[in-house]
Amino acid sequence: MFRPAFRPAQRASLAVASLSRPLVPTCRLYTTTPRPPPPSSGFYSKAKVAAKFTGFVCASSIVGIVVVGTGILAHDAFTYSDRHVSRVPLNPLALHPERGGPKNLPIARVLIDDEEDEEAKLLAIKPKLVIVGGGWGAMGVLESLHPGDYHVTLVSTDTYTTFTPLLPSAAVGTVSVRSLIEPIRKIMARLRGHFVQGKAVDLVMSERLVEVETAKGDGSRSSIYIPYDKLVIAVGSSSSTHGVPGLENCFQLKTIGDAQAIRRRIMDNFETASLPTTSQEERKRLLSFVVCGGGPTGVETAAEIYDFCQEDIMNYFPKICREEVSIHVIQSRDHILNTYSEEISKFAEEKFSRDEVDLITSARVAGVTPTHVLYTIRNTDGQTEQRSIPTNFVLWSTGIAMNLFSQRVSNLLPNQVHKKAIEVDSHLRVNGAPLGEVYAIGDCATIETSLVGHFLSLVNEADKDKNGKIDMSEWEYMVTKIKERVPMAEDHLAQVKELFQLYDSDADNSLSLNELFLLLQDVGNQITSLPATAQVASQQGKYLGKKLHKVAHAEGGGKAGAVALDQDISPPFKYLHLGSLAYIGNAAVFDFGKYSFMGGLVAMYAWRSIYWNEQVSARTRALLMIDWIIRGIWGRDLSRI
Amino acid sequence: MFRPAFRPAQRASLAVASLSRPLVPTCRLYTTTPRPPPPSSGFYSKAKVAAKFTGFVCASSIVGIVVVGTGILAHDAFTYSDRHVSRVPLNPLALHPERGGPKNLPIARVLIDDEEDEEAKLLAIKPKLVIVGGGWGAMGVLESLHPGDYHVTLVSTDTYTTFTPLLPSAAVGTVSVRSLIEPIRKIMARLRGHFVQGKAVDLVMSERLVEVETAKGDGSRSSIYIPYDKLVIAVGSSSSTHGVPGLENCFQLKTIGDAQAIRRRIMDNFETASLPTTSQEERKRLLSFVVCGGGPTGVETAAEIYDFCQEDIMNYFPKICREEVSIHVIQSRDHILNTYSEEISKFAEEKFSRDEVDLITSARVAGVTPTHVLYTIRNTDGQTEQRSIPTNFVLWSTGIAMNLFSQRVSNLLPNQVHKKAIEVDSHLRVNGAPLGEVYAIGDCATIETSLVGHFLSLVNEADKDKNGKIDMSEWEYMVTKIKERVPMAEDHLAQVKELFQLYDSDADNSLSLNELFLLLQDVGNQITSLPATAQVASQQGKYLGKKLHKVAHAEGGGKAGAVALDQDISPPFKYLHLGSLAYIGNAAVFDFGKYSFMGGLVAMYAWRSIYWNEQVSARTRALLMIDWIIRGIWGRDLSRI
Repeated sequence: MFRPAFRPAQRASLAVASLSRPLVPTCRLYTTTPRPPPPSSGFYSKAKVAAKFTGFVCASSIVGIVVVGTGILAHDAFTYSDRHVSRVPLNPLALHPERGGPKNLPIARVLIDDEEDEEAKLLAIKPKLVIVGGGWGAMGVLESLHPGDYHVTLVSTDTYTTFTPLLPSAAVGTVSVRSLIEPIRKIMARLRGHFVQGKAVDLVMSERLVEVETAKGDGSRSSIYIPYDKLVIAVGSSSSTHGVPGLENCFQLKTIGDAQAIRRRIMDNFETASLPTTSQEERKRLLSFVVCGGGPTGVETAAEIYDFCQEDIMNYFPKICREEVSIHVIQSRDHILNTYSEEISKFAEEKFSRDEVDLITSARVAGVTPTHVLYTIRNTDGQTEQRSIPTNFVLWSTGIAMNLFSQRVSNLLPNQVHKKAIEVDSHLRVNGAPLGEVYAIGDCATIETSLVGHFLSLVNEADKDKNGKIDMSEWEYMVTKIKERVPMAEDHLAQVKELFQLYDSDADNSLSLNELFLLLQDVGNQITSLPATAQVASQQGKYLGKKLHKVAHAEGGGKAGAVALDQDISPPFKYLHLGSLAYIGNAAVFDFGKYSFMGGLVAMYAWRSIYWNEQVSARTRALLMIDWIIRGIWGRDLSRI
Repeated sequence: MFRPAFRPAQRASLAVASLSRPLVPTCRLYTTTPRPPPPSSGFYSKAKVAAKFTGFVCASSIVGIVVVGTGILAHDAFTYSDRHVSRVPLNPLALHPERGGPKNLPIARVLIDDEEDEEAKLLAIKPKLVIVGGGWGAMGVLESLHPGDYHVTLVSTDTYTTFTPLLPSAAVGTVSVRSLIEPIRKIMARLRGHFVQGKAVDLVMSERLVEVETAKGDGSRSSIYIPYDKLVIAVGSSSSTHGVPGLENCFQLKTIGDAQAIRRRIMDNFETASLPTTSQEERKRLLSFVVCGGGPTGVETAAEIYDFCQEDIMNYFPKICREEVSIHVIQSRDHILNTYSEEISKFAEEKFSRDEVDLITSARVAGVTPTHVLYTIRNTDGQTEQRSIPTNFVLWSTGIAMNLFSQRVSNLLPNQVHKKAIEVDSHLRVNGAPLGEVYAIGDCATIETSLVGHFLSLVNEADKDKNGKIDMSEWEYMVTKIKERVPMAEDHLAQVKELFQLYDSDADNSLSLNELFLLLQDVGNQITSLPATAQVASQQGKYLGKKLHKVAHAEGGGKAGAVALDQDISPPFKYLHLGSLAYIGNAAVFDFGKYSFMGGLVAMYAWRSIYWNEQVSARTRALLMIDWIIRGIWGRDLSRI
């Protein structure tokens, strides 16, 4: 396993020095304020040679930019037009929808753009696919659908989709929030889809209606029903409180709004700390940043805040502010990034201790007040004692919980017992909902892992001789059935015979129902459910999109009550782990399951390029690259907006 | 006068077609969603040839960008550092400031970074220059000051300065707000200046203290005194209400916050208008945009909204929305842009009528309700009748008024009579304040034009023979004196003899005091005060900065009560009008006083390039160019943030 730790990375960065050194002054010419000179290291002979090259590159690319720029400005001549629209055909039903459903609300069977042109008219008669949510899962579905498959309607409170993995960067202004978002309408244009800005609040499965709360012109809210043939629930999750009091004093980092709020608070803290009348003690409090949760989000945010202080605050705020900064990470487990490999945790922890980031492991947050974070920790003599950190910024990033809509859906279905998410089968169909009508993906969904739930049906299927016992051959048959229903159990059922013997306690070469029950229970408990990550959501979305495309062209064409069943059309969903990565402050770590990779700048660029490739649109890709360049030349944006 | 009107501009834009045409598809490859094809025009033979060239340019510049990009990413290796600061020297007075002044508040005589290094220590003993406000005026002062002249402190509620002329573009997302702002701390770094985020609320001229209200960590506010030797008031203005009721239902466009709020409202209106349950009538109201005020801001905003609808809404929202859009401009005078030359007004009006923008001239806004704008207009039979427009967006951009701080300052000084701004003399010193201690510039200041105010002193000076009459020679002497005190009167005093004879009604070859008084009054009334524009503010700022630099090196070195008087050091301020310009929707107009220029795209690029050159920093310049390019390729940002 390649493990350069830090030195090689530094060397790597010095290797490119000959390129970057002369570049710095070249670009400094343009900056309003001098940045501190790079730490000296004798490369001037090379530098001189490189200077010409760099100069050329700089010049050529500037010329390039300008030329392209002018070209594109000229291209405005065409984007601008005197097009005028008038008398757009409009179905009266779109203006005066019939009312119905349990709450007798208007039902949006026809949308105002359903008849605006021929293409729209053709789509209007297709089966209605409604997607609730605008995150990774939803985008995955849109991506793999084909135009003409469905009359697609997406319901979301935000008009844009967010590239969530970079929210920590946006929170300190390393990248601008605008570079992380893409308007959903633009993404849906390919499918001629429809967007409804609103909040899904309820579901009527019997009549296939989603209740959506929308805003009115006067700011008040009203509800409508949106009918569906197929419904995809991808509403994500909210943060779990773990019953900790005072979370209203915490920030979260799930949306663009969160990132902006965090940014404002950080800037305000530094501005207030710079005021002449702020007491030393208050300054310490203002500049102490506490992150609750040692997962990727928490770690990356802590790292970004550290970078921000090192690279920007240092140059433009009173030095005393930098001196007083303290960053704390409170983690309940005994290591940060505990879902990653062990050496990654260690590497991250070493990096943080070098950066004087205060890691508080095996600690539980007891409460958050407007001025303090309280936590309990086991002291050296094994007693738990309570401690507190004065702070004016607390980020809460520990685990997920159901948001109101998922909660509502799961309450509607008696067999939904999971506490953190909507339970779906291996085909991502919501358990208990009409087959093939309601799907759930992403953070809001969890694929059932319990085998006990299938106990009776399995016995009925497998116990051929109906003797109330399962012999080896019956067991082998049962295993195949289990794998069909719960693919995630596969790894845990590898040793078929061994399992059988292990649980055949009375060694009568057959499993009594009690023995079988125990076996299924234990195996089921061993299966770990998929993590709530963008990667899982995206894969589930793409899987579902592909399937829905097939369904649309299968018998019944995806209309509700179609004969074609998911299992006839596509295999159950299988998650392929592509690895996890995290940014830890001008260094990054990668965990590809079998092997890990960690290092300094080189790893950081790898980290950047991976995310760069994952962008939803060329626009955000361009903006992101530009952000990194801008930040490289002029540093982060310090303005509080 | 060159007046291409529209056709030549179109031709011009077609001329560059051969470059831009192939560019469009080249770039479309990258876009997520197809944009409507450009209106066809046969250039394919040329296009083919150009295609290669364009391809090359595109490629080369992309390569260039990437290379520079990587170079700069490498440069991160140096911006990142393990620098640690500790034990920053700190004057105890900075932590426990003495209290004093009429309200016995803490006085910030020492700031926390006054002793952090040698340079800071040297500056700490320099005379204190305090600038209130962070707009054009303030930036002008900072720009022309030299490092080491003063211990500079800037007080502003925003941490950034804004490029106000492009706010209308930001309001619809043609450019991003981030491209219009530059953090004040970065601008002040050149002077090692200090920034205090706070709101100036009061002034104690006797003790030379500015009272500033600052935020505390817990969100509450507290006040401190900031001492000065020289004070520059550059707090801008607020919008004048003209006593119209219901302005709380209007938007203004003076700050980034305003632009963001307008953007959100526009997006919300379109989203709500797209909802299936919105009634036809309500949709019309949501999509009717009313601008009160036919000045540059109003006109440009109306134009930008029109562009937005034509180029973006058209492509991504239901077509019915575009059909229902109506844009109204209510102007009290009988022409829009009435401060510009007549043909410019006509050109703009013609452009708007082509674009079906509804111009309502010679109308007075009577009131604004949450759902309507009421206005009175003279109908054909000469009676004034009241009409109303249903709307959900009203922009109020008519004239300026004093904000609270200017109001307060003007109330402190008995001889301040002007209603709209603080009256200053021709050296920009606030009338009535201790000489050479308090200056006011920009929108919040107006240079006195009344000659009557000087009546007695002028008579004393000029009436040599003390006979209570002014003969021709005395009058000629008096004219020179008047020009000294009120340079703006110069043009109106050109015909010295003619004036004398004109007002010597009893033809006794001498002006009685009554005759003189009348003369001065009439001449004074003819002088028009300077417009409240960025141009004036910026010129005043630079003038003042240069002067303060000289003062710092003159006898007394700028300490309060210095002997050197402004008039000994520099001539009075003279405004040089460089011309006015305005964007009117893929066309622009320029008024250079003597001659005007107006046209389509070509003029638009001229307009852009002028603003591009006026940017405060290379950073915003780069961002702005990028914004225009991004908008050219992918259209405006549709997301509501």
